[in-house]
Amino acid sequence: MVEPEAPQLDELGRRAKAASRVLAITAPAAKQAALLRAADVLRERASEVLDANAADLAHGEATELSPGALDRLRLTPERVEAMATTIETVAALADPVGEVVDGRALPNGLSVRRVRVPLGVVAVIYENRPNVTADAAALCLASGNAVLLRGSSTALRSNRAIAAALRDGIEKEGLPADAVVLVEDTRHETVRALVQLNGLVDCVIPRGGRELVRAVTAHATVPVVVDGDGNCHVYVDAAADLEMAARIVENAKLQRPSVCNAMESLLVHEAVAAAFLPRLPDLLPGVELRGDAACRDLVRQAVAATEEDFSTEFLDLVLSVAVVGSLDEAVAHIGRHGSGHSEAIVTNDLTAAARFVREVDAAAVLVNASTRFVDGGELGLGAEIGISTQKLHARGPMGLRELTTAKYVIEGQGQVRL
Amino acid sequence: MVEPEAPQLDELGRRAKAASRVLAITAPAAKQAALLRAADVLRERASEVLDANAADLAHGEATELSPGALDRLRLTPERVEAMATTIETVAALADPVGEVVDGRALPNGLSVRRVRVPLGVVAVIYENRPNVTADAAALCLASGNAVLLRGSSTALRSNRAIAAALRDGIEKEGLPADAVVLVEDTRHETVRALVQLNGLVDCVIPRGGRELVRAVTAHATVPVVVDGDGNCHVYVDAAADLEMAARIVENAKLQRPSVCNAMESLLVHEAVAAAFLPRLPDLLPGVELRGDAACRDLVRQAVAATEEDFSTEFLDLVLSVAVVGSLDEAVAHIGRHGSGHSEAIVTNDLTAAARFVREVDAAAVLVNASTRFVDGGELGLGAEIGISTQKLHARGPMGLRELTTAKYVIEGQGQVRL
Repeated sequence: MVEPEAPQLDELGRRAKAASRVLAITAPAAKQAALLRAADVLRERASEVLDANAADLAHGEATELSPGALDRLRLTPERVEAMATTIETVAALADPVGEVVDGRALPNGLSVRRVRVPLGVVAVIYENRPNVTADAAALCLASGNAVLLRGSSTALRSNRAIAAALRDGIEKEGLPADAVVLVEDTRHETVRALVQLNGLVDCVIPRGGRELVRAVTAHATVPVVVDGDGNCHVYVDAAADLEMAARIVENAKLQRPSVCNAMESLLVHEAVAAAFLPRLPDLLPGVELRGDAACRDLVRQAVAATEEDFSTEFLDLVLSVAVVGSLDEAVAHIGRHGSGHSEAIVTNDLTAAARFVREVDAAAVLVNASTRFVDGGELGLGAEIGISTQKLHARGPMGLRELTTAKYVIEGQGQVRL
Repeated sequence: MVEPEAPQLDELGRRAKAASRVLAITAPAAKQAALLRAADVLRERASEVLDANAADLAHGEATELSPGALDRLRLTPERVEAMATTIETVAALADPVGEVVDGRALPNGLSVRRVRVPLGVVAVIYENRPNVTADAAALCLASGNAVLLRGSSTALRSNRAIAAALRDGIEKEGLPADAVVLVEDTRHETVRALVQLNGLVDCVIPRGGRELVRAVTAHATVPVVVDGDGNCHVYVDAAADLEMAARIVENAKLQRPSVCNAMESLLVHEAVAAAFLPRLPDLLPGVELRGDAACRDLVRQAVAATEEDFSTEFLDLVLSVAVVGSLDEAVAHIGRHGSGHSEAIVTNDLTAAARFVREVDAAAVLVNASTRFVDGGELGLGAEIGISTQKLHARGPMGLRELTTAKYVIEGQGQVRL
């Protein structure tokens, strides 16, 4: 048997574009039905998905994928069920499409309103995590977009099985299967071609490491939303409640160290450094502390931090620590080293809190709360397709609303411009 | 005398970034005072600006710039006064910074709100129009952004004089002169370097022709808002009031043919083609009509339109004309040839209007009104820095609000994530 040749990328783009035109005018209930059916089909086909995943895993072991990568790749019956549940959660979210964002009557009698509409075709480029296939497809469909999914070669068999199940479910409810299009060509050049499909792709979201983001932004001619690094700081102010600071520092570092909203760097005001810093080894057991000179004077266990350490997103049990002389110094340090993700202050000083909120330039600033709250689920978005660290279009966690744009609708009775 | 060496581009970017940090926390009244003073200084220095412009014009004539380009380059006392007035108009607009976009209390007691903040540093790359120097600077400053201005070599002397006046005015009111930074290096490579200043430039807006937009999107690694072409259609439906259609067609084509929201293509339902199309030569005197076969059967004066004509933004006294069999055909034609700018229907049929509004994918859709209304001034934005034809971030006319982003502010009392 001869394998049919894989469709060209632009043909896949055209299919997704055609589907997006249908989805844009599909009623919320129909999108919801399609999502629920997709979740059902995914459950029915769990064993096929797991078989495909087993083949990916075997191939990954044969090609010496790291244990961490194999773990991210691995699906279990529970993980397949979690994917189906996520699709159902997304299906239950309020549909943002059709919302009137704002509107007014103009002096000449024209009625103007801005109405939320889908972006069109969203391309999601991701790495070795098959669950992104289901999550991204669900969020895009729920917001009326078609999605072009381009995952990694390591997860190709799993992604194929998941996408096939979703497509069948969607089609059974009368919506176009091409609402979900998997790009099976996993060559590196495909990313470059995909991000240059102007006219077919309305937005690209790279979900992955710095190298992927760099490759996408370097080559993209279509708009990109960057889901970037989180070099998140907690600043313990002179006026901090140190018990609260301890709880927040522990939570921000240890609750889940491998994610983008975990704390990577701790700044402590010199007035409370002697009282707070010596507690760190007990507070953060197993965490390697890399401190500046003032920190090392107070914490024997700390090793010397390099300038590079302060700019690094460790995603691991490592923390850089610096003592600062003032709020200004803390804000300047964050301006120099931060990645614009999530920055927290612990203080009881209202002025210090207000200044931190105003002066720190990041997607999210927090007062007396753990950085770990900067997450679509935690913030009530229901689910997120990523956390934007750029300022254009979306900033911070991106939910269904961030997968839409607004269209001006202008209604008149024959008005012309004078 | 030795000319001091021009500062490097990244040094200019750093200056603008430093200024942007100050502007971001500057009160509305201080920004307003700086703008009013900038307008004053521009007026005081009108003769210097005109002298610089005369030198640009002399150089332009010597290098055989086209008459149209010379006209766009030419400043007069009235045009300098108009620049000053525009700055004052912008100064009077409501400041979007600090607006609470939305907010809520979470079940765990966290208070979450999104607050409007400036983008930071906006780079505007434009062609041979010195007035853009003043307009863009005013809009960026009013929205709390620093601006990097990169105009054309043909207008360098004029831009230098205008920017110097604005900088002096801003500085006299105690704000950083680097709120307005002119990039005087007009080599082609500079555009490429400018759109890759990640970390210093938050957004690039190319204002110019297709070639400029292409160069910017091809090389940019920072986010871009595309101010693209307007291949705008007016569709005269079967249920149109033909007198109204005549007024709108005349206005959309002739009121100002050289701008992006002028009509470039006319679609007429076959049911009214015989009644409407023969009126075109009288309605649009001096306009070259390029029609499909059905149009040419009814309008002797029309020449044959090519497929290319239907995709062309003429910006001139040329109009492509097609007869369509249905609303579906009109929507499909616009989907194939439109540029996503402004699309109008003339109809008295509510269903047809509603379908057109829903199904046409463009920044603005109009019912019974001229496409010429799609303009920041007309829509009540006060002024515009461009009209976005992309879907990400801003769509349609961009005013002060579109020069901002939102920051999550999350306030707690020590909450940690469970």
